Order: sequence, then structure tokens, then C-alpha cells
Amino acid sequence: MNVSKPLLNIKKIEKTRINQVDFNNLAFGKNYSDHMMYCDYVDGEWQTPQIVPYGPMEYAPSAKVFHYGQAVFEGMKAFKDDNGEVHLFRPEQNFERINKSSKRLAIPEFPKDFFFESLETLLQLDTDWIKAGQGNSLYIRPFVIATEEGVAASPSDQYRFMIITCPAQAYYSQPVKVIFAQEYSRSADGGVGYAKAAGNYGAQFYPTNLAKEKGYQQVIWTDAKSHNYLEEAGTMNIFFRIGDKLLTAPTNDRILDGVSRKSVIQLAKDNGIEIEIAPVEVKRIVEAARKGELKEIFGTGTAATIAKVIGFEHDGVYRDLPEVESPYSDFMKKSLQDIQYNRAEDKHGWLHKVS
Amino acid sequence: MNVSKPLLNIKKIEKTRINQVDFNNLAFGKNYSDHMMYCDYVDGEWQTPQIVPYGPMEYAPSAKVFHYGQAVFEGMKAFKDDNGEVHLFRPEQNFERINKSSKRLAIPEFPKDFFFESLETLLQLDTDWIKAGQGNSLYIRPFVIATEEGVAASPSDQYRFMIITCPAQAYYSQPVKVIFAQEYSRSADGGVGYAKAAGNYGAQFYPTNLAKEKGYQQVIWTDAKSHNYLEEAGTMNIFFRIGDKLLTAPTNDRILDGVSRKSVIQLAKDNGIEIEIAPVEVKRIVEAARKGELKEIFGTGTAATIAKVIGFEHDGVYRDLPEVESPYSDFMKKSLQDIQYNRAEDKHGWLHKVS
Repeated sequence: MNVSKPLLNIKKIEKTRINQVDFNNLAFGKNYSDHMMYCDYVDGEWQTPQIVPYGPMEYAPSAKVFHYGQAVFEGMKAFKDDNGEVHLFRPEQNFERINKSSKRLAIPEFPKDFFFESLETLLQLDTDWIKAGQGNSLYIRPFVIATEEGVAASPSDQYRFMIITCPAQAYYSQPVKVIFAQEYSRSADGGVGYAKAAGNYGAQFYPTNLAKEKGYQQVIWTDAKSHNYLEEAGTMNIFFRIGDKLLTAPTNDRILDGVSRKSVIQLAKDNGIEIEIAPVEVKRIVEAARKGELKEIFGTGTAATIAKVIGFEHDGVYRDLPEVESPYSDFMKKSLQDIQYNRAEDKHGWLHKVS
Repeated sequence: MNVSKPLLNIKKIEKTRINQVDFNNLAFGKNYSDHMMYCDYVDGEWQTPQIVPYGPMEYAPSAKVFHYGQAVFEGMKAFKDDNGEVHLFRPEQNFERINKSSKRLAIPEFPKDFFFESLETLLQLDTDWIKAGQGNSLYIRPFVIATEEGVAASPSDQYRFMIITCPAQAYYSQPVKVIFAQEYSRSADGGVGYAKAAGNYGAQFYPTNLAKEKGYQQVIWTDAKSHNYLEEAGTMNIFFRIGDKLLTAPTNDRILDGVSRKSVIQLAKDNGIEIEIAPVEVKRIVEAARKGELKEIFGTGTAATIAKVIGFEHDGVYRDLPEVESPYSDFMKKSLQDIQYNRAEDKHGWLHKVS
């Protein structure tokens, strides 16, 4: 008799923690839903995914993730529409990207059926954690860590894939001031900048702290070679509007291929907004600002959706951006959210209904 | 009355695991000594260090180290001399460097007295794990990880500093073939290459795997800008001998300031070996190899001490290195080990006796 393995095992919570959470006053990433998924890679294969109550787990002090940063992650969101139906936004993109990141970090790729089956089950179990209404969502964090015990600097032979989730509110309009990087860099040609590799983020904290001390919330990273081209903001891709045209850098091995980025590009095309995807020269942006032709800068990313930039510093000079009527950033944010909350036509099939 | 806090707390093992270990057949980094140290940073300060039995510890799935690679480490060795006395080799260098790495990763620096007091106590408790005799040592791994629960991409407000140790034997003469990097890169100008940041290591695994598939054990990284200059080998600094002169790259923000590297430079100076510390052009090395003037390449690092390179590939061409009489690599290895095992005069005060 051919008995197939179960696709996943589930151990439910005994009692929900949901009543301890103030959904009107959420600190991002501080409250985790009742369940989580983990799946271990041992003996050369991914074992059966396990859904269990969210909680701490034991790791050896020599687990490779602690020493060699062999770890990747994704950021996704689930939205509940006014009919109480839950949708993921372009989850295939995140699934493909985590495997692309894994490959660059020498981590074995994760099976697609394990990913979707366990993610959807998790969302069904914790559906009460997903609140309907503008700005509310469930932030989803899939990640993979190297768990082999051993301090030799070589790829782990054991891994753990996990999914944890946390309720999120809108990042209420925190318009940001940014500084263009001129000394520090985020990534090298031939490096891991295009991957959501854990180490890419820790490496940005110190220069970002220096920027914060000067009054800037974010650094716009430039190419490490010349600092002449604007690339991305570390947790966001970045768009510039000169006149009525949008500009953004093409992806390369230093820039994350953002899901929000590609959605904004598509929305621009759909709506007749001219968009130029080409290296964005710092001096072109500074010159446009000087002439009053730089109308907007905004970042795109899953956590923030669209983050409006209100001014930037370069070469020691701070420049405010003008207030414009009907900014593209508002249009893009509304367009994205209308699709995400299932209020607008989803003509590209971006929504993935959690059945 | 002024009662000072104890400098550390100790909880000893009940029964040693030492008899389970075959000291004549050690896999590097697979057997850990009986005790470990951990020290938590909470509420803005490092708490009292704790020495406890080596073992797994619990971490929240959202601990920042798993997501953002905010982690640094060091590699050090303790040696037992023929009189049974234990010495560390230039430990102040490692202490200073872990704090330098921490600073770049936005991790709070660790107090010097905590470091030395707990390290020496650990070595005294586990002195039986340190075997005398050529090639034997105790490998010491101090490391710091970000432990705050939270998936927001910002510096952690909680950390854990740990020291674990494992007995090591000599890397018996595994001469290595290397390939000069022409596509992938280890680090960017303005990046974290000079720090022992966890993410620097995981990022090398994939290109190193590609090199291994071609028959090379290591990649010699070149500058990401042009791939024209040879920098370091990822876990080792790298030296070239042309004629009777040694060459090595100067440290910069892409290159780790290796303790073995600076010791070899000093030994060269002490012994009248001409040494040039300047950017090492790939074409100079290839040209010297073509003319038969390239006598040696070797790597320097705590784990391997000195690793002899027997050939290299560049631009698709593999070149063997010649067998030379009295190679510098042998001289450097013997000189370093004679000091480490307290058999030679320690004229620079590199040994730190564990009292």
C-alpha cells in the first residue's frame, strides 16, 4: 500500500493570546500571531512542515546562523477585504525570491507546495489576527536559517525554514528625509545585494544611525564604485519624479528586485505615466531639484507600501521637495491598496485568495 | 557599605564530556568543551557574565540575529606548552577587533575586564581540553548576536556575547589550489569587509562552492571595482613571494586586519625578509608566475596558521607554483608555532599567560 506522508503536521495552541493585543496601537513586529511554521532540512531533504504555537526554540551556540549569517528572509502581507476574505499580494514573487536568495547563500531551495500549503494553513488558523480595514494587514515573515552545529566556515548541512506572522497597521504617513550615501555602501558588484540576505540589513544599521543623528531617517544607497548612481534605500526601492516622468534604477546584482517596485512600474504603465528604468545619476537628481523640476521621491516596499520623501541631503546641502498636487506617491499607494483590499479590478491577477 | 557586583557567575558541569572525545581524530569545530560563557546586554548595559555548561539556549523566532545578521565574531587559540602552561596568542588584538566589528554592526562594545576575566576562567575550568604538543590547541570563538524580539529592520536593543571553545588539531598540510575572483565579490568600499561580520562569511559560500566544483578550495577575492587587485581569501589574509620579496595588500575597509597577517609582517621584518605592503596587482602576480619568479603564495589565519597554496587559476589558466627550498611559508609557520608553544623567545610580548 502506498501511504503518502502528510503535507504538514499541526499542533494548535491551547489558548489564544489575541486578547492581550491592542490592535489599535500596534508596534510593528512586536506581537506575533498564535501559530508559526517550521520545517527542518536534514539528511539532504526538507522534512514535513510543522505548524506549532509561536514560541522560542532551542539552538546550539555553534549553530552556523549565529556565526556566518547564512540566513535569508522575505516580507509579505495578507489583507482582509470587507467581506472577510483574506488575500495575499503576489506571493509567488516572494516564494521565487526567497529561493533566489537561498541559492546565493548556498541554502537549499524550499518546495513550493510546502510553502503555500503551510502559509495558507497558518493564515486560516490565525485568521482572527488579520483585521479588515484600511491600513490593517498581517505581516508575514518567512525566513531560513543555518542550524548545523559547527564553527568551520562552510555551508551548513542543516537548515530551518520558518514562517512567523504579526498584525500590522499602516505606517501612518511618516514622511522621511533621506541622505544620499557618499561614504558607506550597501553592496558590491558580484555581492549579495540582490538577495534578501540577513547580513545586508545588519550592515546598514551603523551608517543609518549616523544619518539619523543628522536628522535623516533613511540612507539612499549609491553604487559602491562611484557613489554617482542612486540605487535603493535598504528596505525600499526608490522612485524619483522629474516633471511628469518617473525614474527608477534597473535591478542588478546590488539591488533587490522589489515586488512593490515592479507593481508600481506596472501601475505607471497601466496609467500612462512615463517611466524610465535606467541608472539614476545623482547629479541629474540634484540638478533637477535645483531647477525645481524634481517633484517627488518615494520609496516602495512591503512594510511601508509607499513612503513619501520630503527632502534629501547630498554633498552637505539639504533640499526640500515641493508640495505637489496629486502626487504620484498618493496615486500609487491608493492604487496598490485598492487592489490589496480587493476594492479595485485586479487585472494582472496579483491577488491570491486564501481559500 | 559598598558591595560590588561579582565579575562573573559560575555554574559548573556535573560530569565532564571529555571522555567522549577522540583527541587524535578531531573534526574541526564539532566538539565543544564543557563550559561556555554568555553575557546579556539589556536595559542599556552588559549584565554579569555567566559561565555555564555548554549547551543549547532558547531564542525567539523573531530574534534579530535570525533576520538581520547583526552578529560578529572572533577566532583565537590557546596553546599548552610542554610545562603544562596555557597561553593565548595576542588576545588583546582579538578583543579590540571584536569591538571594532561590533561598532560597524551597531552593536554595543564589550568591556575588557569582562572579556579577559571570563575567558581566562573558562580556560582554567576547561584546561584538560587543551592538549600539549605540536598542532594541538583550543580554538576559541567569542561572538555577539542580536537577541531582541522584533522584525523591524533596526538595531537590536538586546544582545548576547558568548564564548565557546573547541579542541583543535593542526590542519595537516592541506595545500590548496585557489582561483582569483573575477565575477563575485566579498565586499564593497564603504562596506563591512574589514569587520568579522557574520554576513561576510555566508555570502562567500556560494562562489566558493562554484570554485570547489572546478577543483579549487579557496577563492582569492579581488577588489569589487575592477577585480585587478588581490585582497584576501575570506578566512585568511594572503601573501605572495616574488623572488625573495614578500607582498601583501594593505588593510582597507574591505580587508580584515588579521592577527596572523600582522604577526607574519613583523616576523618578516625581524628576519630581514623584504616585505612590500601595497596593492597587489593581479597582472603582476600572473606575469611573475609566467616568468617563474612567483615562488610562493600562502594564506594566514588563526584556524590554519599558514596555508600553502600550490597553484592558482586566473582567466581560465591554471598555473602550478614551483617547489622551493626553504619556503617562507614553512619558516613563518615554524616561527609562529615556536612562539605559540613557548619554545622560542617572545620578543614582542605576543603570549598572554593564563594565570
